[in-house]
Amino acid sequence: MRTDPPSGLLVALRAYETALATDDLDALDRLFAPGPDTLRGDATGLLVGHDEIAAFRGTRGGAPARRLVEVHVRTLDDDHALVLAVTEPLGGGRGQQTQLWERGPAGWVVAAAHVHAPAPAFDARVWRVLADPLIVGAADGPLARRTVAVKDMFAVAGQRVGAGNPTWLAGASVEPRHAAAVDRLLAAGADVRGVARTDELAYSLAGTNAHSGAAPNPRAPGRVPGGSSSGSAAAVALGQADVGLGTDTGGSIRVPASYQGLHGIRTTHGAVPTTGLVPLAPTFDTVGWLTRDADLLAAVGDVLLPPDTAPPGGSPRLVVSRALLAHADADVAARVAAFAEHAGATRTDRWDDVDLAGWAEVFRVRQGWEAWHAHGAWVRAHPGALGADVAGRFAAASAIDDEAGAAAAVRRETIRDRLLDLVGDDVLVLPAASSVAPRPEPGALDAVRTATLRLTCIAGLGGLPAVTLPTPLGPRPSAEAPHDVAGFPGVGVRAAPPVGVCLVAAPGRDRALLALARVLTVGA
Amino acid sequence: MRTDPPSGLLVALRAYETALATDDLDALDRLFAPGPDTLRGDATGLLVGHDEIAAFRGTRGGAPARRLVEVHVRTLDDDHALVLAVTEPLGGGRGQQTQLWERGPAGWVVAAAHVHAPAPAFDARVWRVLADPLIVGAADGPLARRTVAVKDMFAVAGQRVGAGNPTWLAGASVEPRHAAAVDRLLAAGADVRGVARTDELAYSLAGTNAHSGAAPNPRAPGRVPGGSSSGSAAAVALGQADVGLGTDTGGSIRVPASYQGLHGIRTTHGAVPTTGLVPLAPTFDTVGWLTRDADLLAAVGDVLLPPDTAPPGGSPRLVVSRALLAHADADVAARVAAFAEHAGATRTDRWDDVDLAGWAEVFRVRQGWEAWHAHGAWVRAHPGALGADVAGRFAAASAIDDEAGAAAAVRRETIRDRLLDLVGDDVLVLPAASSVAPRPEPGALDAVRTATLRLTCIAGLGGLPAVTLPTPLGPRPSAEAPHDVAGFPGVGVRAAPPVGVCLVAAPGRDRALLALARVLTVGA
Repeated sequence: MRTDPPSGLLVALRAYETALATDDLDALDRLFAPGPDTLRGDATGLLVGHDEIAAFRGTRGGAPARRLVEVHVRTLDDDHALVLAVTEPLGGGRGQQTQLWERGPAGWVVAAAHVHAPAPAFDARVWRVLADPLIVGAADGPLARRTVAVKDMFAVAGQRVGAGNPTWLAGASVEPRHAAAVDRLLAAGADVRGVARTDELAYSLAGTNAHSGAAPNPRAPGRVPGGSSSGSAAAVALGQADVGLGTDTGGSIRVPASYQGLHGIRTTHGAVPTTGLVPLAPTFDTVGWLTRDADLLAAVGDVLLPPDTAPPGGSPRLVVSRALLAHADADVAARVAAFAEHAGATRTDRWDDVDLAGWAEVFRVRQGWEAWHAHGAWVRAHPGALGADVAGRFAAASAIDDEAGAAAAVRRETIRDRLLDLVGDDVLVLPAASSVAPRPEPGALDAVRTATLRLTCIAGLGGLPAVTLPTPLGPRPSAEAPHDVAGFPGVGVRAAPPVGVCLVAAPGRDRALLALARVLTVGA
Repeated sequence: MRTDPPSGLLVALRAYETALATDDLDALDRLFAPGPDTLRGDATGLLVGHDEIAAFRGTRGGAPARRLVEVHVRTLDDDHALVLAVTEPLGGGRGQQTQLWERGPAGWVVAAAHVHAPAPAFDARVWRVLADPLIVGAADGPLARRTVAVKDMFAVAGQRVGAGNPTWLAGASVEPRHAAAVDRLLAAGADVRGVARTDELAYSLAGTNAHSGAAPNPRAPGRVPGGSSSGSAAAVALGQADVGLGTDTGGSIRVPASYQGLHGIRTTHGAVPTTGLVPLAPTFDTVGWLTRDADLLAAVGDVLLPPDTAPPGGSPRLVVSRALLAHADADVAARVAAFAEHAGATRTDRWDDVDLAGWAEVFRVRQGWEAWHAHGAWVRAHPGALGADVAGRFAAASAIDDEAGAAAAVRRETIRDRLLDLVGDDVLVLPAASSVAPRPEPGALDAVRTATLRLTCIAGLGGLPAVTLPTPLGPRPSAEAPHDVAGFPGVGVRAAPPVGVCLVAAPGRDRALLALARVLTVGA
């Protein structure tokens, strides 16, 4: 392999840098190899094929100005060479760019590129405040030195609560003490790493905050992170915190857990105190958390949860309902069904005649009435302060009169009785969300929200605990490759977005669900 | 180019992943191509040659466990292929790895690799606290929305001052108001982005804090960042803040500016109030700042500095002294001399008989006496709290009795008179540090400190303003490559570490120096 460039390569490299500096999309398109095999990867993910790469370029609005400070060439033959360049953006830091160039019919083109740009100080789509640590926990304890991302709905002493909205933040006072859940985590030795982004007032399942932007979804690049505990979830998925403390009113733990391949629990309503939490809909609001594994999910439960109210008895029976699976997209239903089968779940037809659409409407109305009761005065006093999606939701909520709110509360009690009967002593296995994480297209997000709420309203209306865990992704080490420590995907196969499975049980059985999740994860 | 792997490549890739997972250094060494042309780059920099790569592997103690979630292969011929893999560390996030494999006499080996791992929440070697923003500045002003990294020696309201030491931080109270310099920046529209790391009590020039670690030096990977304003400087060099607010007692702005290729100013002693600043040696302590360009350096000066005390008159005369250059390493002296020549500086022999070693000793003694006077009681009360280097410096300071301290103060006055006479109305051009950034080897750091203080004590003893700017690096666009917008280095040429040049003038001429730096930077 030679270290001097083949003829014409440096001219092409200069042309590439010029096209990048001037955001000359036509030239950049020409300088990337045509066809479905061209590769371009950076910290946000890997693009495959010329079309995907061209689409990305078209939306990003140019690359930051930079100069090359080192250029290394490894020449394979007259028509192929690798170029590895150290870049220096004018905005600071250093990056690197590796390109495989090939000489095609139209001259030199890039067949594969790997780019990294300097990292920002922190990802402001994930965090609002960060420190090393922000709050030091007790010296010892079961969670000693575990780091926590606290959803910006909980009080952290010395900080303001932002509730995902800059106007709210500007009007907030510094909190004199921690929320109860934060306090318990600190007492168990955990450190608070920072305050994580949330959808505005937690009134969304998408994770696309109009002010701070959508947090990234590292497991499904280009797709939404899920919300409203979006920042807590992304912080955990990115490895930037061990525990994401959040809330779940209508799915705000379950949906981001599902979209990002995390473990999460929405606790029994009332099991973990909500003291120090900005409410959304208090009769539905629950404290929850997200982790990368079932062991830590359970360890946090040992700290935050009361003892289970129902004796665990023998092993709970797992049940799965085809009627409930039918509310999810086919790929999601298939993966959850496979998980259920592997876990030995029994099929049940008891849910076949449940009117989930009707239930979801009861949930929507009562949640909306409570949300308006909690925040309507603030929303009215701050016109234009909310992003369009959450503003629209509050506008709809404002139209729910007290009579409709009260009627929904009555219907909720009936549904709850039915739910307690349906679940009984079983553990219901169902999809945590109706789909994989969607791409952030507004129309699509509304449809996804409607579909997902039909599934998530089950635990919501029943005040039931719900543990989410990821269904397995990709093949495992096999006898054919005994030294295969990491698990190998098929060559050229794109990774599928995560799908979460949800385990739901009777109220007060949170710890039993957490124990079950540990067993099921080990067996996965 | 085919997308199916050539024979044996996947076995080699599996062997590589296994070796990585088990930190099998011998296997990894075998799997990287031998010789000086092998490349390996990541976010910390680019390594060239098998030896450099092997040395890196030997010290890092293994890679984080991970699995591959996507593997793409682009096969060039039977003996060459590019592998681009998406990695998923068990600790969260996703990374990417691009490898150029070649089949050599001993089988498949990696000829070039580009790796990126998920970013941490933030770089705790640079920052202690971060937020979006931590303190919002005025809505409008000359520095509107510029971001500031505040050295952890200044009071920021609502925060504790850490002074680079965890024990100090633990005993600190929350500050009720901002330091004067912070207040002025906020009033001019700048936002405080966070609190940046410092060497302990600012008593070092290295930037290697024993507790938070050495901040990275993006312009000179593997070398120290310089201190004590290490975090403020790195934040700016990394593009994570626009302005690094710091202090300079014996070189704590000039040295990191020089090591990291930044612009910086150490102001005339007393010109910018030190209210709200933890002192080191008050008769030497000055406020300073760092930026990536001369324009912003001057714009901050417009906010923080009083009007110049001396009328600017005509253009100041630049002078350069070979006797002073001789105190720097040959490569540094050569680059500063070239800069001086290009800037039209006149050679002067007036500094030929200056005893810089003696002056530096006066500086060391008086600084030590003041530092012990300021912090001796705290140091005595907290044995073991300081890192070895700073503890050693305080131990030496504790041995300086009041008589020696007073004698040094008297000598300082004599030196100061001499300095004012030597500098006169000129601008002295000299190296900002005696060497490029050294590698963090303890013995080397002490020697570098001693050599650098001989140059930096000039402004220190005289209370003189000193502006540091980078000497140019690499070639500029040329007539041969008129479309060369970015400036191109020679193929295979390693980038040299930065060298800073320092402009020193009479007290009160800070603004004139800032204006001069703008002119000289444009002309570079």
